Amino acid sequence: MRTYLDCIPCFFRQALEAARISGADKITQRKILNKLAKTLPEFSLNATPPEMACIIYGMVKKATHQDDPYRKIKAKSNKLALKIYAELRSKLSKSDDRLLKAVEMAIAGNIIDYGVKNSLNIKEELKRILNTEENIFKKNKNVFIHYADFKNILKKAKNILYLADNAGETVFDRVLIEEIKRIDENKKIIYAVKDKPIINDALIEDAYICGIDKIATIVSCGSNAPGTILSLCSKEFLKIYKQADIILSKGQGNFEALSEEKRPIFFMLMAKCPVVAKDIGCSVGEIVLLFNLKRS
Amino acid sequence: MRTYLDCIPCFFRQALEAARISGADKITQRKILNKLAKTLPEFSLNATPPEMACIIYGMVKKATHQDDPYRKIKAKSNKLALKIYAELRSKLSKSDDRLLKAVEMAIAGNIIDYGVKNSLNIKEELKRILNTEENIFKKNKNVFIHYADFKNILKKAKNILYLADNAGETVFDRVLIEEIKRIDENKKIIYAVKDKPIINDALIEDAYICGIDKIATIVSCGSNAPGTILSLCSKEFLKIYKQADIILSKGQGNFEALSEEKRPIFFMLMAKCPVVAKDIGCSVGEIVLLFNLKRS
Repeated sequence: MRTYLDCIPCFFRQALEAARISGADKITQRKILNKLAKTLPEFSLNATPPEMACIIYGMVKKATHQDDPYRKIKAKSNKLALKIYAELRSKLSKSDDRLLKAVEMAIAGNIIDYGVKNSLNIKEELKRILNTEENIFKKNKNVFIHYADFKNILKKAKNILYLADNAGETVFDRVLIEEIKRIDENKKIIYAVKDKPIINDALIEDAYICGIDKIATIVSCGSNAPGTILSLCSKEFLKIYKQADIILSKGQGNFEALSEEKRPIFFMLMAKCPVVAKDIGCSVGEIVLLFNLKRS
Repeated sequence: MRTYLDCIPCFFRQALEAARISGADKITQRKILNKLAKTLPEFSLNATPPEMACIIYGMVKKATHQDDPYRKIKAKSNKLALKIYAELRSKLSKSDDRLLKAVEMAIAGNIIDYGVKNSLNIKEELKRILNTEENIFKKNKNVFIHYADFKNILKKAKNILYLADNAGETVFDRVLIEEIKRIDENKKIIYAVKDKPIINDALIEDAYICGIDKIATIVSCGSNAPGTILSLCSKEFLKIYKQADIILSKGQGNFEALSEEKRPIFFMLMAKCPVVAKDIGCSVGEIVLLFNLKRS
């Protein structure tokens, strides 16, 4: 997805938020915003938003000398999600369509990020979603039409690449990966995380903490952009990307980075901003399973 | 109120919105945002947000050659509000505390602006507020504690200065002014509007269309800032401002411009943004009657 003009105010909002979380004083916060203001006119709107995010978080890091300002948030998210893990498994075992339920859960995990940013009570919010009697996608039929394709393509796929999004959310990914392995233990699943700290995105350590190592091969994509920008990824990762029979892509950042790609990618995300929602054709807050090759 | 760092992303949002309403193409929209980005580092945060807004809307005007892009929105707001006028009067006549009800209505009129920007169904929203059985300020006791002061100071006041906010809202102001005149027909009320088009702020023509001329003297404040920035106002207006025994100030822009003033000002507004809400000590969406000299 290219950068829309509406992303520009949001870049400033993100820079301010990151500066504050990094403990910058008000003078430093202003300096960061001014630096961004000076850089912005040079930024091409043909680039994707995560490319700008990369520049912004780099500026914040340089100004604050904070290498991993979201460390505590990530640890909290992992802990919270691990506490819910047994409950997720229990709910899954009672489900009529286990794969569908596991997909739902994996996408529901994407609200952790949203919750943290909007001071939601994440535990309550997840409980609400997961305890609801009705299928959480019932209201979202228009953006969840690709489940049949997902099921078919997944069935035939040998090599699965799973692109992680946030820490904590990784526990929800684990539930889906376990379900995929339960159906066919011969499937080879690679779970790709970011190389270095960027916002609250999952790193190799988060994948281990959340138990992904038991059921998938954990790799770094070789970049620390908050979205899988292929031109920034490592050769090793690109090889995996090209060989994958199906790619499961979590979150907005990966959608923004890969939405124009012609590969069998299933985007699983909550639409958290009006620009992404408009690009997809859904409402803000909707949870989406979208097959790239079937996008109109 | 000084400018907060959180206002900076919002300046870009406002610039983009104004550019679009002015019919700018995408290239011009980007140019305006770039111009703002270049100007921003020089802008002092000790200035008030309407001072920056003034610069922004000036940039948009210069780039688009649109003198009054909000003309249609203002006309629509006036028409809408005039349609409700009879209903407002009828509700008022049935009220136990007519002055309180009229104040409530005047502040409720401040949502027209909010509604237009957020694509609310304004008519429905106003109906909802005005038809509600309970007092709309019941939930807002903490920010509506100054009604007794308002009543007392108003009673003694001979010269009243009423600072208008948006077109349409002016009809709601009329209801309050009529009520003040009904209680004491000898009170001298001056209704001040902006000098030239700025966003959807009321101008002299809007005050006439909404019938203010029947009950008050209409004047221009001499400036086209979206808030009464005294340093930009005319000498004639400043004389009126200094002689007023009480000043009724509508909307956020006037609050932002005058909140540090030591004059008997009653701010009547809906808190539409988190920065203003935080400064006042209320929640976004709350409707407020605030006495300047009693601010802690």
